[in-house]
Amino acid sequence: MDIIDNAAVSQHLSHVRIVMVNTTLPANIGSALRAMKTMGLCKLVLVAPKTYPHPDIDALSAGASDLIEQIEIVETLEDAIKDCHLVFGTSARSRTIPWPLLEARPAAQKSMQAVMQDQQEIAIVFGREDRGLTNEELALANYHVTIPVNTDYGVLNVSQAIQVICYEMRMATLELIDKKPDQEAVMHVTNQEDMHWDEPLVTHEQMEQFYPHIEKMLAEIEFLDPKNPRLLPLRLRRLFGRIQLDRMEYHLLRGIFSRVQALNNGTWKKSKNEDQN
Amino acid sequence: MDIIDNAAVSQHLSHVRIVMVNTTLPANIGSALRAMKTMGLCKLVLVAPKTYPHPDIDALSAGASDLIEQIEIVETLEDAIKDCHLVFGTSARSRTIPWPLLEARPAAQKSMQAVMQDQQEIAIVFGREDRGLTNEELALANYHVTIPVNTDYGVLNVSQAIQVICYEMRMATLELIDKKPDQEAVMHVTNQEDMHWDEPLVTHEQMEQFYPHIEKMLAEIEFLDPKNPRLLPLRLRRLFGRIQLDRMEYHLLRGIFSRVQALNNGTWKKSKNEDQN
Repeated sequence: MDIIDNAAVSQHLSHVRIVMVNTTLPANIGSALRAMKTMGLCKLVLVAPKTYPHPDIDALSAGASDLIEQIEIVETLEDAIKDCHLVFGTSARSRTIPWPLLEARPAAQKSMQAVMQDQQEIAIVFGREDRGLTNEELALANYHVTIPVNTDYGVLNVSQAIQVICYEMRMATLELIDKKPDQEAVMHVTNQEDMHWDEPLVTHEQMEQFYPHIEKMLAEIEFLDPKNPRLLPLRLRRLFGRIQLDRMEYHLLRGIFSRVQALNNGTWKKSKNEDQN
Repeated sequence: MDIIDNAAVSQHLSHVRIVMVNTTLPANIGSALRAMKTMGLCKLVLVAPKTYPHPDIDALSAGASDLIEQIEIVETLEDAIKDCHLVFGTSARSRTIPWPLLEARPAAQKSMQAVMQDQQEIAIVFGREDRGLTNEELALANYHVTIPVNTDYGVLNVSQAIQVICYEMRMATLELIDKKPDQEAVMHVTNQEDMHWDEPLVTHEQMEQFYPHIEKMLAEIEFLDPKNPRLLPLRLRRLFGRIQLDRMEYHLLRGIFSRVQALNNGTWKKSKNEDQN
């Protein structure tokens, strides 16, 4: 993942605009900018904000002042989305108007596919703090998008919702870049491979020298009976097999085994004893 | 997805605790509670918060007052995680200490698999607003977890980071419930999770006896210099921290350490030698 080109990610994300309709609290606009910038989005459109400009916007945007300069202010939602290809209206789950509904993750995947394949322009529309989008506004969207939340508690506030949506947009972009055959490399989705190691992991072949070594050492100190090893070798394989040692750790452990062997057969003695003698 | 039992989701998520270390701003604690509750998490542990209680916590938690009552306050990070099986330390990407690192999504998947298969207790640890977690605190974690952000801009604040992590925890839970054919197991994703353990996994507290034991043993055989241990203790923590030992393996390894100690101090001798003498 480290080799991913951050500028390329941001370039894709520049096709996704966040639209906030009739926002009351300037603090929410500031928080939205910060959430956008941390994830690499840059374009915010405000539809008839209640209060603008306001110092809270600058305060809460925390260093995203370049995005403030790019804010576009329009009078109607139609103006905000007129050059867009794909418009998502955010909505809580229970709604009166029936509409194609996607959760945030597939909505982000759909959006970024549209951007990366066809250079489409995407809008994600967020409603008023107190009552969201009207049915008329929701009807302007191609899809509705919802964030799965704890239904016993209720909804995210608008800046939290923007945070989650922007995060999913970035994740979808990273995934799609990753899947591109020409970009090659990186990230197969399993857990272990996701890790970032300083040292290369050891191979199966190296581990096949590791197990005889630990078993021989344990036999020498009579912790393992070679004539009746019972489950011990299997347990050691299970234990070290799932750990995926890196090269440094491998040599560290084999060094310890060798020390114990040398101690046991008398070829290594404690320095203190030598000092004392 | 709509038919999912919200109470069941929350029950799984009750095994995941959010731990905030030395938090300065009460507003961040309030926002964290709100983020948690919207996603169905309920357990917040505060390690030596700078200001507590404070009206901002109540104001920003916005109706999550039941979670305020459940907040646990402890003096040290160790106290916060001692009964946990799997501990994640949050960190920005570029750090001095190398450790197994997962992004938020696979970390959440790993966590919820551990909860749903083995009823493990999970902790996600967040650091100070200004400078995160110390290296010593990070070394207590099994894994580090990071949120992929716009590297040109920098980091999320702590409540935004908690929002994203809690969201991923909920999504991972929903996905895992969704995949369950009936109740039967599933999940082929990785080595570790596939295993059905006969033995319970050890807790963080037990591991805190394990590390001093291996270090003492290594010091006794002069593999480790207590006056100048260099990176060795950290490497051992990283290695055995990600392995998640079960009880059998734990006792097996400690038995080996004890045998080496006895061999070294002369309280145990090889039976062959005795036979020969």
